[in-house]
Amino acid sequence: MEKRLKELILEFSKTAWKEYLPHLSLDCVVFGYNAGNMKVLLLKLKDQELWSLPGGYIKKDEDTKDAAKRILNDRTGGDNIYLQQFRFFAEMGRSEDFFTDYDDGLWHKQRFITLGFYALADFAAVNPVVDIFSSICQWVDIDDLPPMMMDHRNILNEALYTLRRELNYKPIGYNLLPLEFTMPELQRLYEIILNKKLNRGNFYRKMIGYDILDKMDEPRMEGKAHKAPNVYRFNLEKYNNALQNGLKEGW
Amino acid sequence: MEKRLKELILEFSKTAWKEYLPHLSLDCVVFGYNAGNMKVLLLKLKDQELWSLPGGYIKKDEDTKDAAKRILNDRTGGDNIYLQQFRFFAEMGRSEDFFTDYDDGLWHKQRFITLGFYALADFAAVNPVVDIFSSICQWVDIDDLPPMMMDHRNILNEALYTLRRELNYKPIGYNLLPLEFTMPELQRLYEIILNKKLNRGNFYRKMIGYDILDKMDEPRMEGKAHKAPNVYRFNLEKYNNALQNGLKEGW
Repeated sequence: MEKRLKELILEFSKTAWKEYLPHLSLDCVVFGYNAGNMKVLLLKLKDQELWSLPGGYIKKDEDTKDAAKRILNDRTGGDNIYLQQFRFFAEMGRSEDFFTDYDDGLWHKQRFITLGFYALADFAAVNPVVDIFSSICQWVDIDDLPPMMMDHRNILNEALYTLRRELNYKPIGYNLLPLEFTMPELQRLYEIILNKKLNRGNFYRKMIGYDILDKMDEPRMEGKAHKAPNVYRFNLEKYNNALQNGLKEGW
Repeated sequence: MEKRLKELILEFSKTAWKEYLPHLSLDCVVFGYNAGNMKVLLLKLKDQELWSLPGGYIKKDEDTKDAAKRILNDRTGGDNIYLQQFRFFAEMGRSEDFFTDYDDGLWHKQRFITLGFYALADFAAVNPVVDIFSSICQWVDIDDLPPMMMDHRNILNEALYTLRRELNYKPIGYNLLPLEFTMPELQRLYEIILNKKLNRGNFYRKMIGYDILDKMDEPRMEGKAHKAPNVYRFNLEKYNNALQNGLKEGW
């Protein structure tokens, strides 16, 4: 018979104190992009109607970024993912209040300061895998989020705001779009992150000004030939340089 | 007779385990601006030629931002300071390796993940105050930094990079410049943070485009009247709105 959530938590708590750094957890907001929609990888808790971000703890002798990679790898089966810390979340009671039904000695009921990472993943390459506390692990549209546990909805929102701000000085899209894409497809990605419509001409000029794209020789053939849209790829050298040193247009 | 650093550390260690969250510390990069130079508040360790950032620990029932405010207030005597978390630092061995001369039970010799805050302070309003481990607390020019303990130089650099990136979507200057300033004075602040010269005309256009400045009626009288530079103030309502929602020019 399948174990209940409570049983699994009590079991995990017994060994966690020895294995992990106390008071510290780690949550990952994993973004993917598919068919013009931004997705985020979520887990549904067993026996509850609440969803959570992929997360976990840091082993006593484990680097924090390695911990994030391990957790991400466990949930996605992939490790070629753009991963970045973005902020920590430390609101008083954020974990204690969620586990009031349990005894105070429970691992999960400690005060946790969680280190927030965001990740950009290739939607098609991810194979979602549940963790021990969850019954489902799947991509969810960011415009259609289910109820989430603790402050996970806030962590997700902050990751999205971070992406939004980073559009001002960092390129985006290499880990999210297919190898080749049209300018309207790239614009759609920006619009989704910014949550607003952009002017097509301004977008084109700004993006060309960033000087991170290579235009392919052949336009994409779909419908009438004279309307075939140009196809672009990111120029990886210029893209990575802009990731390091900022976009040309900024200060 | 004054106590030695080692003695002070051993004494602190005895009570720290009860009072503070283990494995977590907090470091503040406090920037000030004076006479065209960017300054940072540093402490010189007793009995050592190394300097440190103002920092400390988080009390078991204390909010992290309150901890940062407390530490900042202790070192500066002021509390009207712009304070912002910017990233955490968790390199393996960052604290353990610095305290190799001490027993393993020492508070300071734990593995510490430090929460990095940066602060923008009014240079003139700060009264630097030493902590128990330090002999000096003072403003130091960022172009003339002394040797620093552990990874503090890296934390400082990352805070500066953060400021630099934030110039692309956030206004800056209210906490750093006097109430009234000229455009060349504001430009100098940007140049210091960006570590490069900017074109005067472009700077003027971009800054006016942000729409966060009020021009004063009276230019500043110095030297020839026909060359008197215009004087500006930040429009606080627009400035705070831009802090929240980003600068007009961005995406």
